[in-house]
Amino acid sequence: MMQYNLQLKGILERARHTFPKKEIVSRDYSGIFRYNYGEMYKRVCKLANVLEKLGVQKGDRVGALAWNNHRHLELYFAVPCTGAILHTLNLRLFIDQLIYVINHAEDKVIFVDQDLLPLIEGIKDKLTATKCFVIMGDSPEMPKTSLEQVYYYEQLLAEAGDSYDFPDLDEETKAAMCYTTATTGNPKGVMYTHRSIVLHSWASSMVDTLCVSESDTIMPIVPMFHVNAWGLPFTASWVGARQVFPGARFDAQILCELLQNEKVTITAGVPTIWMMVYAQLTKEDYDLSSLKMIVNGGSALPRNLLEAYYQKIGVLITHAYGMTETTPLVTCCKLKEYMADWSMEDKINIMLKQGLVVSGLDARIIGDDGNDVPRDGKSMGELVLKGPWITDGYYKEPERTKEVFTPDGWFKTNDIATIDEEGYVQICDRAKDLIKSGGEWISSVDLENTIMSHPGVAEAAVIAMPHEKWDERPMAIVVLKPDFKDQVTAQDILDFLSARVAKLWMPDVVNFIDEIPKTSVGKFNKKALRSQFTGV
Amino acid sequence: MMQYNLQLKGILERARHTFPKKEIVSRDYSGIFRYNYGEMYKRVCKLANVLEKLGVQKGDRVGALAWNNHRHLELYFAVPCTGAILHTLNLRLFIDQLIYVINHAEDKVIFVDQDLLPLIEGIKDKLTATKCFVIMGDSPEMPKTSLEQVYYYEQLLAEAGDSYDFPDLDEETKAAMCYTTATTGNPKGVMYTHRSIVLHSWASSMVDTLCVSESDTIMPIVPMFHVNAWGLPFTASWVGARQVFPGARFDAQILCELLQNEKVTITAGVPTIWMMVYAQLTKEDYDLSSLKMIVNGGSALPRNLLEAYYQKIGVLITHAYGMTETTPLVTCCKLKEYMADWSMEDKINIMLKQGLVVSGLDARIIGDDGNDVPRDGKSMGELVLKGPWITDGYYKEPERTKEVFTPDGWFKTNDIATIDEEGYVQICDRAKDLIKSGGEWISSVDLENTIMSHPGVAEAAVIAMPHEKWDERPMAIVVLKPDFKDQVTAQDILDFLSARVAKLWMPDVVNFIDEIPKTSVGKFNKKALRSQFTGV
Repeated sequence: MMQYNLQLKGILERARHTFPKKEIVSRDYSGIFRYNYGEMYKRVCKLANVLEKLGVQKGDRVGALAWNNHRHLELYFAVPCTGAILHTLNLRLFIDQLIYVINHAEDKVIFVDQDLLPLIEGIKDKLTATKCFVIMGDSPEMPKTSLEQVYYYEQLLAEAGDSYDFPDLDEETKAAMCYTTATTGNPKGVMYTHRSIVLHSWASSMVDTLCVSESDTIMPIVPMFHVNAWGLPFTASWVGARQVFPGARFDAQILCELLQNEKVTITAGVPTIWMMVYAQLTKEDYDLSSLKMIVNGGSALPRNLLEAYYQKIGVLITHAYGMTETTPLVTCCKLKEYMADWSMEDKINIMLKQGLVVSGLDARIIGDDGNDVPRDGKSMGELVLKGPWITDGYYKEPERTKEVFTPDGWFKTNDIATIDEEGYVQICDRAKDLIKSGGEWISSVDLENTIMSHPGVAEAAVIAMPHEKWDERPMAIVVLKPDFKDQVTAQDILDFLSARVAKLWMPDVVNFIDEIPKTSVGKFNKKALRSQFTGV
Repeated sequence: MMQYNLQLKGILERARHTFPKKEIVSRDYSGIFRYNYGEMYKRVCKLANVLEKLGVQKGDRVGALAWNNHRHLELYFAVPCTGAILHTLNLRLFIDQLIYVINHAEDKVIFVDQDLLPLIEGIKDKLTATKCFVIMGDSPEMPKTSLEQVYYYEQLLAEAGDSYDFPDLDEETKAAMCYTTATTGNPKGVMYTHRSIVLHSWASSMVDTLCVSESDTIMPIVPMFHVNAWGLPFTASWVGARQVFPGARFDAQILCELLQNEKVTITAGVPTIWMMVYAQLTKEDYDLSSLKMIVNGGSALPRNLLEAYYQKIGVLITHAYGMTETTPLVTCCKLKEYMADWSMEDKINIMLKQGLVVSGLDARIIGDDGNDVPRDGKSMGELVLKGPWITDGYYKEPERTKEVFTPDGWFKTNDIATIDEEGYVQICDRAKDLIKSGGEWISSVDLENTIMSHPGVAEAAVIAMPHEKWDERPMAIVVLKPDFKDQVTAQDILDFLSARVAKLWMPDVVNFIDEIPKTSVGKFNKKALRSQFTGV
């Protein structure tokens, strides 16, 4: 067969030739902006000419500090299709980490949304490799700024030619990069190649995964700086789906209005978003009848929220699982055909899992000895992966790379999982959060979810506390809902649990706290909790 | 990203781990055979051990002369996954061509279905490279045969171990091969790689192409020796769809019963099959309510048949287009979202086209000068292709390979097509069948389809006849339905056409004939017609 390089150019060209009239909707600062793939293509060409003019060369890193909007989408194509690498910057990183990743990646140019300008202005003197800045927004003129060597996106595009001869690139050419926040040490960079993104787009457009098609309207709420918004902008452009970008600083009301008014069919985000959106749905009425799939990732959804969504809008939320190192799609949870007439409870039991490993990846679960543990739905092991969109290591970090691979080259997810006889993967815990008690493994995540199903509990984290006899025992740290404050005791929590978990799993201690500390991406910071409560 | 070879092993392993209980249904000689992917996997392992025992080595060609059945499916995986190459043999080839392809490919072992045994027995003395034969069937004992060095499939499997450690192969390793019948000269061999088949499986499992999912039941009627049954056995196994194989020497009644009784959701075949099946549907009542997609390939369907199916069973047949050299999927025709409320006639106008180029391929239409012709839905040009499942040439045929590529490496399909502003491809003619009259291009296919929509016409072919002034003019060669024999005149045909085609397109001559000569794959043999009627 023909030597042919899989490239993002192919996605861009297909969108242009096949779906020129399909709409892209972007919530801009002054209102909703609408254009189509035909116009998008021309602006991507203009942007490619701009990048050339700014001196961006093949392999250079280009930073983007931006929300989910159409300009960010243009960067998604123009930067990699010219051979450079798009470095999406997490705008929620701690300032020191933001400086670190920009300098570590050596971002030559940084594109920044106008309302995020203060963030860059505040650190500009510490950026060692950045030659210039481009401000993105829809003000008629460039906002005032203390930045030097600074341009205005719309002005640059207005002056640029609208055709560009995109180069033919080797499929292993780096296309994009993203840093993953580590609980210890600096963030670690993961590089995506043209090949990996194209293959990932295929895997995620299959019927049994994200099922993205021409007739869909996709709204990625997951940030475009978070593993390329799970690849959705690429996948959607390839199949010609209508895309909706919720823009800067949205709230639940804005999201619900967009879902309703733009007749969104597929949306994707993390549990925090779904909690926020659900609260809004109980406050006001929205017609979300167009919505057919809600994809949840980042962490597992509590059962009550999944049930609540089903009751409220008739959609069973779809779990997907992955991480920065995996582009990210690893599993996706769909019911199998013969489950169609199961009871809703049994269906939900399946839908709470992370799902089936998608086509194209190999997955195993292994014990401490490196051997496979049984695929029986009960035995826990570390999930390890191979596949064409699984990382081969961290950017300029040979030592930290070694830590995450088995001797025979499997990527260690650091997630403890079970796989059942039919291939359903369930993540039980982060390896480091697992509680190892008297030779048994206790899933902190399972315990947390059970505690969080108590009507008075807002949040709960479970950590290991050292124990002389059992090595480790679980400790629960609970945040009560405002109305239940001081009304629920530790014994109440234990009584609630005793009917629901094995005796061995019962926490030795239940502590109450006002708020669970979070990492920069909103996950429970268990390292901080362990340090605060156990000193370990 | 990880260096990871795309391999058919990945498809096999996913089926085994994720869909062990999903059923495979195969019409065997003595009745319907049923098993599942879990059992299939074990038999594939057994077969791999058998191949090793028979001395099949990496790169060796293994012939298969077989119908669509579960043993053929086992060969689809066992042969390539051990590193050998499956050569599927077209059982309808002329004997000389069959001998040619077996010897040209140097098939080391040939697997043959028991009822096709006489075919191989008749040519065994002319096979120069074949070391042994394996007979496939469900008789309790091996059928009597004049073959030497011959084994019985079920006996070999019964004695073999049911586990096998499939090797890790480079993704460019050849996996399968298929010969395409040329109108001049010997058949030409096309080699498929592991990479090309895996990528093709992705492209064909997208929602907007063949939309194959776990909840489907797929029955490929297109033969498994015909471009790997359009890849469906691979795609279906990857997503865990239920598969139904119609077995040996089926007729329309058998097909309709399988479609009904096995609740098939997706089926695929060539126009001859759909004509045959339609005739059966008008004779007896079948409940085909499970059927959601009928894929038609090979050549375009006449409008009246597409309409008839829609009226009869409510399914708008889906056109797909491709060829042996393209693995084969190049285009697939689906309505776009905004066409949902179009009139049925307008929808059918779209559904008669070959459709949109699938994700992963590049397509252009070029004129005689090699330059692009406009994508306006009117301008005709030769369709040329690039992509990872497009051939890089014919096996051991460097000279004939050169003929089918442009200087810059595009594969020339030899098909004349238009592409419209929204990407819909319509094949107008084979380049050599196109009638070039006074600088205008006349599509013989269009004319044929129009003539065939006359109620008295069974078949019609249109060929070019040399013309002094206009270079070429169309000649129609018509076969009347038995009831209309001698009732329809040449003038009747011309009168019928005059209201339907431009004056320039009107045939100069209409001839009647008893039967249109066909090639070994059932297409109109226009070369024979030209020689008979024009002497050219």
